[in-house]
Amino acid sequence: MSVINDILNPKSVAVVGASNDPAKLTGRPIAYLQRHGFSGRIYPINPKSDMVAGLKAYAHPRDLPEAPDLALILLGANRVIEAVRQLAEAGTKAAVILASGFGEAGEEGRVRQAELRAAAGGMRILGPNTIGLVNLTDRIMLTASGAMESEEFTDGPIALLSQSGGIMGSLLSRAAGRGIGFSKLVATGNECDLEVSDFLEALADDPATTVIAMYLETIRNVSAFRKAAEKVRVAGKRIVAYKVGRSESGAQSAVSHTGALAGADEVYDALFAQLGIIRAQTFADLLDIPAALAAGRSMTGKRVAIVTSTGGAATVVADNLGLSGLEMPAPDAETAAKLLALDLQEAVLDRNPIDVTLAGLRPDLFRSILKILAESPSYDAIVVVVGSSSIGQPELVAGPVLEAMALTGKPLISYVSPEAPGIVRHLNRNGIAAYQAPESCASALLALLPVKAKVPVAVQPPVQDAQDLPTGALNEADAKMLFQRFGVPVTREATAASPADAAKVAADFGGPVVIKILSNEILHKTEVGGVAVGVMPEDVETACSQMLERVRSRTGARIDGFLIQELISGGVEMILGYNRDPQLGAYVLLGAGGVTTELYQDVALRLLPLDRTTAREMIDSLKCSALLTGFRGKPAGDIEALTDTVLAFASMAGALDGRLAEAEINPVFVLPAGQGVRAADGLVVLS
Amino acid sequence: MSVINDILNPKSVAVVGASNDPAKLTGRPIAYLQRHGFSGRIYPINPKSDMVAGLKAYAHPRDLPEAPDLALILLGANRVIEAVRQLAEAGTKAAVILASGFGEAGEEGRVRQAELRAAAGGMRILGPNTIGLVNLTDRIMLTASGAMESEEFTDGPIALLSQSGGIMGSLLSRAAGRGIGFSKLVATGNECDLEVSDFLEALADDPATTVIAMYLETIRNVSAFRKAAEKVRVAGKRIVAYKVGRSESGAQSAVSHTGALAGADEVYDALFAQLGIIRAQTFADLLDIPAALAAGRSMTGKRVAIVTSTGGAATVVADNLGLSGLEMPAPDAETAAKLLALDLQEAVLDRNPIDVTLAGLRPDLFRSILKILAESPSYDAIVVVVGSSSIGQPELVAGPVLEAMALTGKPLISYVSPEAPGIVRHLNRNGIAAYQAPESCASALLALLPVKAKVPVAVQPPVQDAQDLPTGALNEADAKMLFQRFGVPVTREATAASPADAAKVAADFGGPVVIKILSNEILHKTEVGGVAVGVMPEDVETACSQMLERVRSRTGARIDGFLIQELISGGVEMILGYNRDPQLGAYVLLGAGGVTTELYQDVALRLLPLDRTTAREMIDSLKCSALLTGFRGKPAGDIEALTDTVLAFASMAGALDGRLAEAEINPVFVLPAGQGVRAADGLVVLS
Repeated sequence: MSVINDILNPKSVAVVGASNDPAKLTGRPIAYLQRHGFSGRIYPINPKSDMVAGLKAYAHPRDLPEAPDLALILLGANRVIEAVRQLAEAGTKAAVILASGFGEAGEEGRVRQAELRAAAGGMRILGPNTIGLVNLTDRIMLTASGAMESEEFTDGPIALLSQSGGIMGSLLSRAAGRGIGFSKLVATGNECDLEVSDFLEALADDPATTVIAMYLETIRNVSAFRKAAEKVRVAGKRIVAYKVGRSESGAQSAVSHTGALAGADEVYDALFAQLGIIRAQTFADLLDIPAALAAGRSMTGKRVAIVTSTGGAATVVADNLGLSGLEMPAPDAETAAKLLALDLQEAVLDRNPIDVTLAGLRPDLFRSILKILAESPSYDAIVVVVGSSSIGQPELVAGPVLEAMALTGKPLISYVSPEAPGIVRHLNRNGIAAYQAPESCASALLALLPVKAKVPVAVQPPVQDAQDLPTGALNEADAKMLFQRFGVPVTREATAASPADAAKVAADFGGPVVIKILSNEILHKTEVGGVAVGVMPEDVETACSQMLERVRSRTGARIDGFLIQELISGGVEMILGYNRDPQLGAYVLLGAGGVTTELYQDVALRLLPLDRTTAREMIDSLKCSALLTGFRGKPAGDIEALTDTVLAFASMAGALDGRLAEAEINPVFVLPAGQGVRAADGLVVLS
Repeated sequence: MSVINDILNPKSVAVVGASNDPAKLTGRPIAYLQRHGFSGRIYPINPKSDMVAGLKAYAHPRDLPEAPDLALILLGANRVIEAVRQLAEAGTKAAVILASGFGEAGEEGRVRQAELRAAAGGMRILGPNTIGLVNLTDRIMLTASGAMESEEFTDGPIALLSQSGGIMGSLLSRAAGRGIGFSKLVATGNECDLEVSDFLEALADDPATTVIAMYLETIRNVSAFRKAAEKVRVAGKRIVAYKVGRSESGAQSAVSHTGALAGADEVYDALFAQLGIIRAQTFADLLDIPAALAAGRSMTGKRVAIVTSTGGAATVVADNLGLSGLEMPAPDAETAAKLLALDLQEAVLDRNPIDVTLAGLRPDLFRSILKILAESPSYDAIVVVVGSSSIGQPELVAGPVLEAMALTGKPLISYVSPEAPGIVRHLNRNGIAAYQAPESCASALLALLPVKAKVPVAVQPPVQDAQDLPTGALNEADAKMLFQRFGVPVTREATAASPADAAKVAADFGGPVVIKILSNEILHKTEVGGVAVGVMPEDVETACSQMLERVRSRTGARIDGFLIQELISGGVEMILGYNRDPQLGAYVLLGAGGVTTELYQDVALRLLPLDRTTAREMIDSLKCSALLTGFRGKPAGDIEALTDTVLAFASMAGALDGRLAEAEINPVFVLPAGQGVRAADGLVVLS
């Protein structure tokens, strides 16, 4: 999108409301542009001055000698709309609007934001309520952020997209303190026009960016976001996202269990996982993981060598790596022999962490040790622990580490045990990610593990005519007939209009049966006494009569009759549901069934469309999948049939997309391998 | 323990192996003692010099003018033992031994450590393999740690006990960087004599210490540790512990499920919880939580006001507090009215975070805002978010915050959004805990919630004669008879020697029964086909004959007969087990039963002895306890009877302590309220 290039790398910038007073916020942007050597044209617009910051100032956009690529608007909310109209008329390509008091500020603000959007016409807008953007690759600062004031900035391959200007300032300042470099930083503010997705897509093509960190409060256009993230993935770049709103997640729907099990945040988790986006679990991860990814290396396995000259710190790192599932094997015989040949006094080389004691402070020896580990077939990555002794002489450790980094393609990161910001900066600036939290070493290394290739091919849903379907809730029999049309196997069953009919049906079936009341006005039959399990054929008529009376007196609902079903035994009980997140769209949920569903929330959730690999991943990710793989000597479950069923259910959701509001099979029984699955209950709500 | 006082606060110190070269490790300790104004006597011991660091040096401990309170031994491992013998003979009270090469260094080292211990006689030892200790209250530095070199140290109410010298150095340096003050820091090293427990007990009496942070790799003497921690609790002080070894936790025993469910780390969790010790979940928590506790304030509820002038950072803090279960209600009407009366432009005061925008930079206004919130009945604590604008002028925020702190007894902490070490130091030094991680704000506030009063009264076990019990595994019937002796209700059952006998017993019972093979050689009956559920009395004889044949052919075990049991239905299935951690001792485990046990590890574990409150806590802490409180309209379970049963089981464990190796009831059925519980299976291994 070329307008993004005009914003990130403008050749001409109008600064509307620029003042001569550098102490004021309105005095900062031109000063920042000039200080960092912006090579394009700057046009101050200020009707009260002829000159601003040594530059000719203009009273009105129409007076400019050219239509600028970009306008930076520093005016207050009440004056922004008129300026936007004038800039648009003057042919300005895009405007960055700093003022707050729009969409974030109640009803009045929302109206004002709509007026703003209208006034812009074809001119694109970043903001309002943004702190601006910084292009560190080309040293172009288009911001009034105080964070630009005092710091020395490193450039690097990490881009930051933030929906909060304050967070952008915070991360810029924290990264500068630690020597972590950025390519571009963009605060998108209220996103009345341009959104994170627009910048995400453009960054896929930015040669200076290989990692994109995002601070997200919401995603406004999900399909654009998915498309942009996919483009980034195909370009071989990585995305790390910190998303707030985790604690607000609540139930979405009262009708099905599915809605109650899936909070909004779980749907975001699914979105990120399906797009290959790493979700930062802590705020620190949002810098820490990109810092490791920036080196462009990945681990081919989980084996990590920890090299240290201080025992305790290495123990803490090892404990955290172990908790994350990483492995720390002792050196293999050949590697150990090479280490021993160095004749290191007191060093403990037959275990991992590899404690080289004082050799860690002798660059020649330390260099040899790191070379041996870098070349060892036992390790996929190396963590160097930096102790207190290095504070005075950071080069003693840093020198050999940098040389080792050059010798190997393996990831190499460092843990700095004492408070030593100078060492942290020195290492980060030289491409060695340096951490002060052992937990960060773990999350950084996990992010370097190979990414599973995603082939997001949607299963093509069979074309179905949904014209014949009514609106509202279906009764169980109709719901299951719908499932069957899409290939979901259901229990053998028949409807009966009366208790006498029911008895005939049960006699045909032979064994004990399940009786359920049939009514599209009753969604939870068990709660109203509308289910009887394991009734013998001879008892069916009486049981039906009693049920009818019971349900009528409790609900007053219209009863369509009875559903007589075969009794399934020996299967694993699961739940399969469909619902729609108001923001992120349609998803399928698979989980442990029965009482377990609510107690342990053992569920897997994925947004549509689904492919077979993803459906299988959903099954494997469940703790209860152990019940399907020969638990305590029981036969394995029919996982293939379950996978087919998840896909069939998803294809139904796809085919009926516009009309399907909710759907749920609870329980679906997974029978032993070769015997398939059976949907034993069904709930469908159509709109 | 007065020797601890001699170590922490000696009046005379012999420094063995002290050298004149300040660049050497052996030159540091006397320099540190002198630099910080140690007022006692220092006796360098060095046969090669007459003077060390301007002090008269002695060739041998016997030449000293007095028996010193403490000796600091700087010699290498091979010369330590002789020095220890000489010091002990000279009447030295205690020695700190820095050398490594002892218990941590293989078999040879272990032998050397035993010799060291013998040579010391009545003289107490701290170490070996320690970096020493620091008494910041009295400015006495008894260490060679390089961390003492460059930093300016703040004293404060936090003591640190560390089993690693490197970690002590790291925390001292990190705390100094952040302005967090310590009272005493002790590295206990190999603990060949004095252990963390000894110092813990002494710190209970130290008026300069109110919070104790501990870095633990193991606990050598658990009963001393429990006693010391209890003394600290009674003294009104708090303990925060970071314990490594989390990733090594594995199964402890193959016989019962209990052992497989309880890793060593879960037993540590139980120990800490029962002693009221806060377990630091991250390494940062080990400083962050004590920093908050140091102010000596606690929250009386969970309601937090977040005050900010920068939106994004406050959102991140709120998200993390919410995830931790804290609440952020909007201001009540009266509080809101007071805030509105301040006439803050643009400020958003009807929600929480309370965004005061630019008023946060006007000390007069900010002071008024904080005062209103401090006095508001809506809040139990306040978090002040510090933004980028404060970097240049920390006093703009710090001043009003410090005043507010003085006005209220509520906890007040701060989150510093940009990289601003100067502000962090300034706030911490003035008693306002300041954090750079939003997660730390959450863990710090959680630590300020009221501690449940613990009344660790052991239930007195009935005196039992265990002489009649055999050694090894009991069969199920014998196991349950043992349970019954201690008051655990068991299923109605009877043993039968033959299939024909079994049929008679079943006929007496009436309804369908459970048949189990009886053999003390078979611990897992189901796996060998030794259990049949729901057999009608008329089918029992045949079922028994078939079972006998099946089990004999599969196991070849000696069969004692059959156990015929009533069939329990409608209860909630749980597991109740006893086991013994090799380090921390005997514990009881209660958990969800059935397949859930292994899938979800929904278990509660407590060390013995148990009181009723703790037994009840175990039940309430389980996710499956929802099944006992009227789940999906089902009747509530008999929680009282379950509590009784847990206590009865624990009292059995206590009474048989020396002999009980393992015990397990799996399942125990919890029937509806008033109907009690039934142990339906039993496993006992006696030693």
